[in-house]
Amino acid sequence: MKNIHIREFQKMMHRLYFLRDTERGVKDTYRWLADELGELEEAIKGNDKKATENEFADVIAWLSSLANITGIDLERAAINKYSQKCPKCQQAPCQCTF
Amino acid sequence: MKNIHIREFQKMMHRLYFLRDTERGVKDTYRWLADELGELEEAIKGNDKKATENEFADVIAWLSSLANITGIDLERAAINKYSQKCPKCQQAPCQCTF
Repeated sequence: MKNIHIREFQKMMHRLYFLRDTERGVKDTYRWLADELGELEEAIKGNDKKATENEFADVIAWLSSLANITGIDLERAAINKYSQKCPKCQQAPCQCTF
Repeated sequence: MKNIHIREFQKMMHRLYFLRDTERGVKDTYRWLADELGELEEAIKGNDKKATENEFADVIAWLSSLANITGIDLERAAINKYSQKCPKCQQAPCQCTF
């Protein structure tokens, strides 16, 4: 597999984990996602590329699982907000002044 | 825009935000991502579908930004780990016993 749409990845997570995710529930699935984000931080700090890749994969996987059990189409959400320009300043690249 | 590959979305984030993300740095970009995850939790708790979609979009956007400045191909990472089966039990759907 060379390329995958965000939606296809979310659907794959649905096939693999939806029953389990549903049983676990939203609160605990969110907690797992938050834990994975902590592991990503540790992997980045440890400067371990393979571990970092692994943790990025886990974060997007758990994010997709959470989207599945909250009824959100992650790809549509992403495209609706971010579509070739910054949603705040409407420029590309972003020209927001903070 | 109807469909988007994970890699295309990451590249869009690169076009829009790479300079700013680089200036902010890995540590602070991670912190923004963690803050967005907290906002996602609040949106889910608030049972507000539009806000929840919005926060899912922000989490995948900031995750992509963090991948850009840490030199990670998020799509490759995701496919390498999750490819039509659970990476732990090698089954689809997952049959892991916890």
